[in-house]
Amino acid sequence: MIITLLTDFGSTDTYVGQLKGALLAVAPSAVCVDLAHSVPSQDVRTGAFHLWAAAPAFPAGTIHLAVVDPGVGSSRRAIAASALRGHIFVGPDNGLLGPAIDRLGGLVAAVELSEPRYHREKVSGTFHGRDIFAPVAGHLSQGTSLSVLGPALDALDRSVVFPEPTQRDQGLSGEVLHVDTYGNLVTNLPASALPAKFEVRVGARRVRGSAHYAAAKKGTLLALIGSNGLLEIAVREGDARRILRARVGTPVELKALG
Amino acid sequence: MIITLLTDFGSTDTYVGQLKGALLAVAPSAVCVDLAHSVPSQDVRTGAFHLWAAAPAFPAGTIHLAVVDPGVGSSRRAIAASALRGHIFVGPDNGLLGPAIDRLGGLVAAVELSEPRYHREKVSGTFHGRDIFAPVAGHLSQGTSLSVLGPALDALDRSVVFPEPTQRDQGLSGEVLHVDTYGNLVTNLPASALPAKFEVRVGARRVRGSAHYAAAKKGTLLALIGSNGLLEIAVREGDARRILRARVGTPVELKALG
Amino acid sequence: MIITLLTDFGSTDTYVGQLKGALLAVAPSAVCVDLAHSVPSQDVRTGAFHLWAAAPAFPAGTIHLAVVDPGVGSSRRAIAASALRGHIFVGPDNGLLGPAIDRLGGLVAAVELSEPRYHREKVSGTFHGRDIFAPVAGHLSQGTSLSVLGPALDALDRSVVFPEPTQRDQGLSGEVLHVDTYGNLVTNLPASALPAKFEVRVGARRVRGSAHYAAAKKGTLLALIGSNGLLEIAVREGDARRILRARVGTPVELKALG
Repeated sequence: MIITLLTDFGSTDTYVGQLKGALLAVAPSAVCVDLAHSVPSQDVRTGAFHLWAAAPAFPAGTIHLAVVDPGVGSSRRAIAASALRGHIFVGPDNGLLGPAIDRLGGLVAAVELSEPRYHREKVSGTFHGRDIFAPVAGHLSQGTSLSVLGPALDALDRSVVFPEPTQRDQGLSGEVLHVDTYGNLVTNLPASALPAKFEVRVGARRVRGSAHYAAAKKGTLLALIGSNGLLEIAVREGDARRILRARVGTPVELKALG
Repeated sequence: MIITLLTDFGSTDTYVGQLKGALLAVAPSAVCVDLAHSVPSQDVRTGAFHLWAAAPAFPAGTIHLAVVDPGVGSSRRAIAASALRGHIFVGPDNGLLGPAIDRLGGLVAAVELSEPRYHREKVSGTFHGRDIFAPVAGHLSQGTSLSVLGPALDALDRSVVFPEPTQRDQGLSGEVLHVDTYGNLVTNLPASALPAKFEVRVGARRVRGSAHYAAAKKGTLLALIGSNGLLEIAVREGDARRILRARVGTPVELKALG
Repeated sequence: MIITLLTDFGSTDTYVGQLKGALLAVAPSAVCVDLAHSVPSQDVRTGAFHLWAAAPAFPAGTIHLAVVDPGVGSSRRAIAASALRGHIFVGPDNGLLGPAIDRLGGLVAAVELSEPRYHREKVSGTFHGRDIFAPVAGHLSQGTSLSVLGPALDALDRSVVFPEPTQRDQGLSGEVLHVDTYGNLVTNLPASALPAKFEVRVGARRVRGSAHYAAAKKGTLLALIGSNGLLEIAVREGDARRILRARVGTPVELKALG
């Protein structure tokens, strides 16, 4: 059974390793797949974007364990939730899981992880990733059902919502959702909204729609459908973030061309 | 069978991958778990801390392969050792393994890895991680017993020892053992030594004991039991290292409060 | 079945995780081993070096999936190729795979990955790692034969070639092929070409040949056979790159000593 891991634990400490140790102690045959552990410290929104982006690449039955958890040890709830397309999510109830659950068809059921029998014997006040979430994910991967882990929840924290583009006179008004490791700008403009010919405006710059990277000359800006099905603004063999001085939230205006 | 990996190989080269290749060539069904590979180059003490911190998160039977090895190719011994609680350690005999072995109940048996039959066919002078330690760990994971790997050793290099706190008139005198990725200061003051109410002093600053992060306001210093069972000094959603200008070895004075 | 992964995807996004998700969706029992994901963006030559360095550490039957792919979405071909010693390579046909294939005995067969039945259902224009290469590697690991993946190819892109050393009056003239994470300079001078006693010259500095690191004093330059079977110039517990101001391509002159 696949269990994906997304955290802000970084790579200089052994926190990710300890989480896997606790997980494998429960489920020795689980297959752990790291999504990312370099989410900026306690940046729930960025974590939610990464989980949203990555979860659909996995088959039904996958368990996603996500821990970006500024409220660890407080009254924020620990939860597990199932989504319509057969994925299960485990993590803190702080908005982190919502966008991914929606992308996978919406919420089917959720529970609060209050049943200590499925946690590590000794639960620390600071490391629920290792002591609660990992053992719970391990038990789920071995067929334990959601319902025994704690009481059902009707609704989850939905504080992380990615903005939808809005209609404007001659096109759509969107924004940058994420800047990736190459400096590509991932916008919130979906492929389905794009006319055959279009350009986008970022600040004073206009960028033409293209079919793929190779359609542009080296160093040239282009706008194309990225791997999430969203419009991305990129520079062939270059860094669009730097050229456009863009960041999360920068407006992107879409206009159809004759 | 779980095999954990801790090295200073970094992530820009393929040294970790090569080590895993050599390991899986011997033991195709081994489950490799990375603890950390960003130990500062040849910093045996930091490596020993990470191994000490992570090993107890794993179940009995786990094999820990650790390579921070400034003396590779010299006369320093290559060893494997078993600890009381059923963990096995493989690595150079330079102090790296000692604290973790002690934390898991103490040494049961140790051998020098002198039997070439369990090494890679061709052993390089610079990469014993791939050529000696990895194949040995692979054989151990498949049931090979320690005793056939080479002659028994009575004692290991014990040059890495984490300092114990010392009693002082009105409390305990400790120090910072480790600064983690969040800037949290892990001290050598154990939970068992903490009175119900206490404060710690770091330089001129006093920090109150707290039950968990959420007990403090954002940006406020707090002292709480961390995931290793040791007192940690942290800043809620902040970086204690920067505020306190602390590092490994910085004194931390504990005082009970009425 | 082992599948190694080498990319320039970095670790801040979830691209590596998504690739593994697509791979495991096809081949749930595949064992993924990361070689490196920090290849500089679109630096095919460095990627080729890493693959060349790492592939021989793996057993016959290993599949190597490598994606450093500035031409993604253009007319560059997607390929799979088998090498004499029983390894299989999957990636873009841009020179990335050539040196490793040669090191493993040379090319046996190659095909263009044009058969969509073995790709992801929906192939994006920007992420062939996830949508073409990963599912193909998954199918290969489950016994699918090369020949059904697409038409046979006679020759691959061979644009990446590591320079051979050249004979000079009193020795060999080589160069730096790679600078590793420790600052060690990996040269193209093979162990087989080294006389019993030798020195190398880098710029104005002379460096003596040594058997291993411990043969030199701390901070001293030494030249020794590295883990690739090539001469490396290192500093015991130090950084040779900084001391010699060397980089890829820096000339290294070898001279036998009486």
